[in-house]
Amino acid sequence: MLRKNRTIKKRSRKAGLPPGTLVHIGEKKAETVRITYIDYDEQNLQEKQITNIEECFQFKAMPTVTWINIDGLHDVELIEQLGRQFELHPLILEDILNTGQRPKFEDFEKYIFVVLKMLSYNVANQAVEIEQVSLVLGANFVISIQERVGDVFQQVRDRIRGAKGRIRKMGADYLGYALIDAIVDNYFTILEKLGQEIESVEEEVVAEPTENTLQQIHSLKREMISLRKSVWPLRELISGLQRSESDLIKESTDIYLKDVYDHTIQIIDTIESFRDMVSGMLDIYLSSLSNKMNAVMKVLTIIATLFIPLTFVAGIYGMNFKYMPELEWRWGYAAALLVMLVVAAIMLIYFRRKKWL
Amino acid sequence: MLRKNRTIKKRSRKAGLPPGTLVHIGEKKAETVRITYIDYDEQNLQEKQITNIEECFQFKAMPTVTWINIDGLHDVELIEQLGRQFELHPLILEDILNTGQRPKFEDFEKYIFVVLKMLSYNVANQAVEIEQVSLVLGANFVISIQERVGDVFQQVRDRIRGAKGRIRKMGADYLGYALIDAIVDNYFTILEKLGQEIESVEEEVVAEPTENTLQQIHSLKREMISLRKSVWPLRELISGLQRSESDLIKESTDIYLKDVYDHTIQIIDTIESFRDMVSGMLDIYLSSLSNKMNAVMKVLTIIATLFIPLTFVAGIYGMNFKYMPELEWRWGYAAALLVMLVVAAIMLIYFRRKKWL
Amino acid sequence: MLRKNRTIKKRSRKAGLPPGTLVHIGEKKAETVRITYIDYDEQNLQEKQITNIEECFQFKAMPTVTWINIDGLHDVELIEQLGRQFELHPLILEDILNTGQRPKFEDFEKYIFVVLKMLSYNVANQAVEIEQVSLVLGANFVISIQERVGDVFQQVRDRIRGAKGRIRKMGADYLGYALIDAIVDNYFTILEKLGQEIESVEEEVVAEPTENTLQQIHSLKREMISLRKSVWPLRELISGLQRSESDLIKESTDIYLKDVYDHTIQIIDTIESFRDMVSGMLDIYLSSLSNKMNAVMKVLTIIATLFIPLTFVAGIYGMNFKYMPELEWRWGYAAALLVMLVVAAIMLIYFRRKKWL
Amino acid sequence: MLRKNRTIKKRSRKAGLPPGTLVHIGEKKAETVRITYIDYDEQNLQEKQITNIEECFQFKAMPTVTWINIDGLHDVELIEQLGRQFELHPLILEDILNTGQRPKFEDFEKYIFVVLKMLSYNVANQAVEIEQVSLVLGANFVISIQERVGDVFQQVRDRIRGAKGRIRKMGADYLGYALIDAIVDNYFTILEKLGQEIESVEEEVVAEPTENTLQQIHSLKREMISLRKSVWPLRELISGLQRSESDLIKESTDIYLKDVYDHTIQIIDTIESFRDMVSGMLDIYLSSLSNKMNAVMKVLTIIATLFIPLTFVAGIYGMNFKYMPELEWRWGYAAALLVMLVVAAIMLIYFRRKKWL
Amino acid sequence: MLRKNRTIKKRSRKAGLPPGTLVHIGEKKAETVRITYIDYDEQNLQEKQITNIEECFQFKAMPTVTWINIDGLHDVELIEQLGRQFELHPLILEDILNTGQRPKFEDFEKYIFVVLKMLSYNVANQAVEIEQVSLVLGANFVISIQERVGDVFQQVRDRIRGAKGRIRKMGADYLGYALIDAIVDNYFTILEKLGQEIESVEEEVVAEPTENTLQQIHSLKREMISLRKSVWPLRELISGLQRSESDLIKESTDIYLKDVYDHTIQIIDTIESFRDMVSGMLDIYLSSLSNKMNAVMKVLTIIATLFIPLTFVAGIYGMNFKYMPELEWRWGYAAALLVMLVVAAIMLIYFRRKKWL
Repeated sequence: MLRKNRTIKKRSRKAGLPPGTLVHIGEKKAETVRITYIDYDEQNLQEKQITNIEECFQFKAMPTVTWINIDGLHDVELIEQLGRQFELHPLILEDILNTGQRPKFEDFEKYIFVVLKMLSYNVANQAVEIEQVSLVLGANFVISIQERVGDVFQQVRDRIRGAKGRIRKMGADYLGYALIDAIVDNYFTILEKLGQEIESVEEEVVAEPTENTLQQIHSLKREMISLRKSVWPLRELISGLQRSESDLIKESTDIYLKDVYDHTIQIIDTIESFRDMVSGMLDIYLSSLSNKMNAVMKVLTIIATLFIPLTFVAGIYGMNFKYMPELEWRWGYAAALLVMLVVAAIMLIYFRRKKWL
Repeated sequence: MLRKNRTIKKRSRKAGLPPGTLVHIGEKKAETVRITYIDYDEQNLQEKQITNIEECFQFKAMPTVTWINIDGLHDVELIEQLGRQFELHPLILEDILNTGQRPKFEDFEKYIFVVLKMLSYNVANQAVEIEQVSLVLGANFVISIQERVGDVFQQVRDRIRGAKGRIRKMGADYLGYALIDAIVDNYFTILEKLGQEIESVEEEVVAEPTENTLQQIHSLKREMISLRKSVWPLRELISGLQRSESDLIKESTDIYLKDVYDHTIQIIDTIESFRDMVSGMLDIYLSSLSNKMNAVMKVLTIIATLFIPLTFVAGIYGMNFKYMPELEWRWGYAAALLVMLVVAAIMLIYFRRKKWL
Repeated sequence: MLRKNRTIKKRSRKAGLPPGTLVHIGEKKAETVRITYIDYDEQNLQEKQITNIEECFQFKAMPTVTWINIDGLHDVELIEQLGRQFELHPLILEDILNTGQRPKFEDFEKYIFVVLKMLSYNVANQAVEIEQVSLVLGANFVISIQERVGDVFQQVRDRIRGAKGRIRKMGADYLGYALIDAIVDNYFTILEKLGQEIESVEEEVVAEPTENTLQQIHSLKREMISLRKSVWPLRELISGLQRSESDLIKESTDIYLKDVYDHTIQIIDTIESFRDMVSGMLDIYLSSLSNKMNAVMKVLTIIATLFIPLTFVAGIYGMNFKYMPELEWRWGYAAALLVMLVVAAIMLIYFRRKKWL
Repeated sequence: MLRKNRTIKKRSRKAGLPPGTLVHIGEKKAETVRITYIDYDEQNLQEKQITNIEECFQFKAMPTVTWINIDGLHDVELIEQLGRQFELHPLILEDILNTGQRPKFEDFEKYIFVVLKMLSYNVANQAVEIEQVSLVLGANFVISIQERVGDVFQQVRDRIRGAKGRIRKMGADYLGYALIDAIVDNYFTILEKLGQEIESVEEEVVAEPTENTLQQIHSLKREMISLRKSVWPLRELISGLQRSESDLIKESTDIYLKDVYDHTIQIIDTIESFRDMVSGMLDIYLSSLSNKMNAVMKVLTIIATLFIPLTFVAGIYGMNFKYMPELEWRWGYAAALLVMLVVAAIMLIYFRRKKWL
Repeated sequence: MLRKNRTIKKRSRKAGLPPGTLVHIGEKKAETVRITYIDYDEQNLQEKQITNIEECFQFKAMPTVTWINIDGLHDVELIEQLGRQFELHPLILEDILNTGQRPKFEDFEKYIFVVLKMLSYNVANQAVEIEQVSLVLGANFVISIQERVGDVFQQVRDRIRGAKGRIRKMGADYLGYALIDAIVDNYFTILEKLGQEIESVEEEVVAEPTENTLQQIHSLKREMISLRKSVWPLRELISGLQRSESDLIKESTDIYLKDVYDHTIQIIDTIESFRDMVSGMLDIYLSSLSNKMNAVMKVLTIIATLFIPLTFVAGIYGMNFKYMPELEWRWGYAAALLVMLVVAAIMLIYFRRKKWL
């Protein structure tokens, strides 16, 4: 929540500038920008971390698949250089730098531009963190730009290095798919965490709701809202990629995109179920409070209604009238106690009948 | 609920692996895998339980209809063997093994792949259990893969064995329809159970709601959420099958699919009505609580307001002032009691007027 | 509610049987099956109650319009005979016998099959009753099958007998329309009843809500749910009939179908308004309860807060300390009473200021 | 509300009659039927109130534009005469007489039939009243049929009489548009009234909600429901007129219809905003009640919890035990009072800490 | 809210006038009308504030791009003059003057008409203010008409003056885009303000909700409703501009419109999230109230239930019966105190067990 508003704040700073003006909008999440590339075909593999982006421009002309990964967005000049080299539209560069993007894809004949949200669970402050990943998918290259070091692509790298599966035999479009698939698959991990949280809060709600429970339900609700905002547009995005008639996506990759699409639907379904559960939890929380209050009220009622009449009887015989015959009786005291007992007994029976006890 | 999250947990283990990697995701519900086949045409019938999947590969080339049923998912190698023999796409095999699928169908020219959820009511823990059934429908074979032994296909088997109805005269597509129909028909049994539960909870809510009632309403709500997730996609699935232009589904089978479609709509309608009823029950539950509290409050109010003024009068004549003329009067005590009686009577009349009694 | 679940229960008994198996599903509402027919053209009219269905098969070959009406569903053999004679698809016969159908229409070139819900208001238990009516509309015949004797077709019969309006001049499609129109028109009668009920409950809610009011609101809500289930599919059904390109429906009948369609929309609109009103009533009911409790609370507060301090003062002078100078004063008693009066007056003024009185 | 149900009641009387039977359904709002006509072209104008409908049939053959206005629906014969003369379909006549129509338009080659709801604000009982207006738009005539005398067409008449704007230069379709526009424009007046009402109720809710406020919110809600029912179908109606390919509507009129359409959307938007506001008001009303109750509770709690312990102390020293050393002490009384003071002070400080004071 | 109703009020004054009648509807927000123009091409720039609108009519014939800006709507004659010169349809002029318009665009071959809402945050009364901006986009001119001096176009002007970006090289359609973009970009600033407000109210709700908090939530809700009304139609508007086949919008501008469209979706998404959050806040507010009341209730219950029985015991030994053996006992007083202590202790332990302490 804090983050989002901050994004909007930064976004608003740019209001009125000419379109295509490159300004990094969002938190600066990395100190230095890290550039790595992997260049491969079925036989060969070349991998390097470089400091000068120009080092990897050589691969543009080669038939091999090149994956350029950039971690960190604050070096605007680097992004500009990249844009010039790969002939990216200025608005694309703007979108890359502005981390408040909605997941979307755009088809510019020569390349496809995809923006996604990569989720990670920050154990320290127990919250889901959202990072923007931009992908530029060309005929023989994929450029991925992330906000900071650390991602969910490790297994993709391992598969390329180890030549596992079909990845080394396929083109850049398959690599693009593999990266999207890795991001989407990671959502399951996040959903699992959320599912555990929901379960534990649910148990708390049913067993022993405290004021803190309300806060937790509220924070779950907010997480769901922000998760939804990241995942819903994915559906459209991936079905758009499937339907797109771009030459960049080969027909053989379509079935893999269909698979990612199915996963996205599954994730959306699960989020919707979670939302239903969370709002159900609020109802239960409120009912539990009412129930508790009810219980407290009952005890008050019973004790008060039991003793108020008895105290009244005691009050009567505490009066100082001169002529109160009962006070002189030998068994007056005992009789008074007896009257009290009988009154108390009648009331107890009445309460039990009413099922208040 | 527990189950679902566990599925997600397992699902997340696979995140990042190359697509088509065969890993069984879900609970291991069976100890050993059981394979059976039935091969039939209008005249002949052959049925056997086998331990080696290869035994039934012979039927692939024959014109008879072959139904291969596999109970248990954990023998990954068997599934791979099956996939190789029937040329199933690796992603299909992955979907079969991953029990967190959403009901769907996919049309690969040579075969149609259908994933469904089979429901069963577990009497022991009074909960609806969900089991994934995958169907592969080819030109002359149907492969059904379940999570464990025990299903709703018994009557279909009996009809094949006894040559009842038209099943022996029809092709593999009719067998496929018969299996889907059996699963959908079984939903009515589950709905009946749920309907009874809803009715009994409803009676409880109206008559004597306890804190336990709230739990039951909540668990009904959750069952509805999970049921909905299984049934809603069915609508799309079956209308997709109807509209599909696959050669595997003959025109004569269309009317039967239309029938299943109608049943699905009926089931969805009923679930939606149930949902309405359950959320209505929560309102009534909360109102009942309020009503009860109201009743308790009234009794408290009446007793307290009756006796508090009377006790005050008694308190006055319990004071020890030297000069209190009333205390000396001959009929002071009687007068005090009379005053109390009159006050009490006035209040009772007032309460009755206000309809609090 | 009870009824519906019972239908589902019976429905579930059939699960797994081959499609087209004829079993009557639903309550047996009639003792004996009653068959009547009316055969007419512009000049002639023949009408008879028969016991053997075969008696009316003769008319099939004649150019006159024949209306065969069957009251009662439990004679499965009769339905089979009918099916054989008029070449009805087994699934249609199944739908006729299964009273849990959703309103729908199906176009089999030679005839059109329509399922509808006929409503009637049972005065005895003040509830809306739902009866399934199946219509089979052929080139020169209409077969109507009801669950029991007693329907809303009386005026249609009178119009045929009296040759009122254009009915005798038109074909079977117009007769079909007239029957559907009679059923839909009857919904207005039911809505009127419901409207009256809603109004009377509304008055009660505003004036003097009791616990019973809640039950009534709840039962209205349930009636609305079941009514909606019967009426909503009608819209689709009738617009489907309009759009259908069947030769059985002449162009001249289209405008009449449009009229029925308008009525259906009007009914749906009214039901939706009623739903809004009923859910509004629940809000008001709950607010009224709160308001009442509030009023009760106020009285308690005022009496308690008035007398508790006064009683405390009395309690002080009821203490038995030896040295309490006030007790010896000549006007001590009067002063104590005065103090109490002043305290009470101050509090009353405070309460009035706060608008609690 | 009352009115609507009455309409349904009357409607249900007709159930089962042959379609096209002319019966006036609705309240009889006028004593005598009033017929007026205006016949005009760019140069000439003729205007007259007539008693015999036949007087205006002469204009049918002339090229001038004729506007026939009928106030009052109960003279069924007159409507029949009109229908015969202008060749109106019996179902149209039926719709004119039945005031429970939903706004709609129907295109019969020779004329277009439009039903609308004209709203007026009845100052006497502070409610929005709904009147049905039917328009029949032919090549050179417009017939408008209202339920009673008094309408929103005065300015249209003035424009025709004074030859203001382009109305005298245009055809019958422009006149039809002008009438529809006058009705739609009038909705803004009604919305203004409703807006004022909402504002005043809103102020009341925030400042000093009473039980009456709840009634007002409820009645606003009901007005909104009925307004919505009148306005929503308008959208469809007008966009239908725009898209209709009837020769009766000239292309030059299209832009004016687009303008009315925009107004309709604006009205619908405003109604939806009002609905949101009204339902928000209910929430605030309920919260205000809770807040008030809370305030009352607090006072009770504070006074009760202050005095109950003090009264207990007084009660102890009111006991008549023979051996109670404190009673004999010289400063016992003063000490007891001091103890009470201290206890009261501690509690007051505690309450202030808890922010209950 | 106030403003809107006033607009409707003014709008209703016009009801019935002929369409195209020019009356300024809305608040008069400026004293004098201010007219400025900027005329430019790649080399030259001319800019001037004029008092007579005719001064800028000369540019109409030139190939340069002319931007005419008018601040203030009440000079109806000026608008008419403009309309005559640029051949604008009377309904367009009417829309310009009527500030209650819904955002929309209309395509008249020769020019495109766009109505938008420009938001500004009034710091003085902490509310979002809405101003209508009309744009007329011709082949080589853009006319912008605002309600008053002061807008969000300053940076666009600076870019034209300083020849920054591509604006001086592009045509009138790019200028039109730039103005729309400036308005949409400004929404982010407003959303940021709202986000901050929501956050601060949210903190208040969780920490220390007061009655004022409820007012704030309510006013946020209303702001959201009015914001939504301004922004939702934008989506349609801009996608309409994109899809329009008007020659006035060059293909090269399409990608910029797509960018604005993305921003609009982002703004709508954010508003929806805000709405979710605000309605969540109301739930939390109400829960907090319940929780507080609960806490107050508990204290009352505990103190009351502790002392009521003790006071009763004291009352018993305050009775004046002659024969009460306990009163004579040497340790009677001590025993009574002990009994009280034990009773109090038992109750305290019970309360702690029940977790009420």
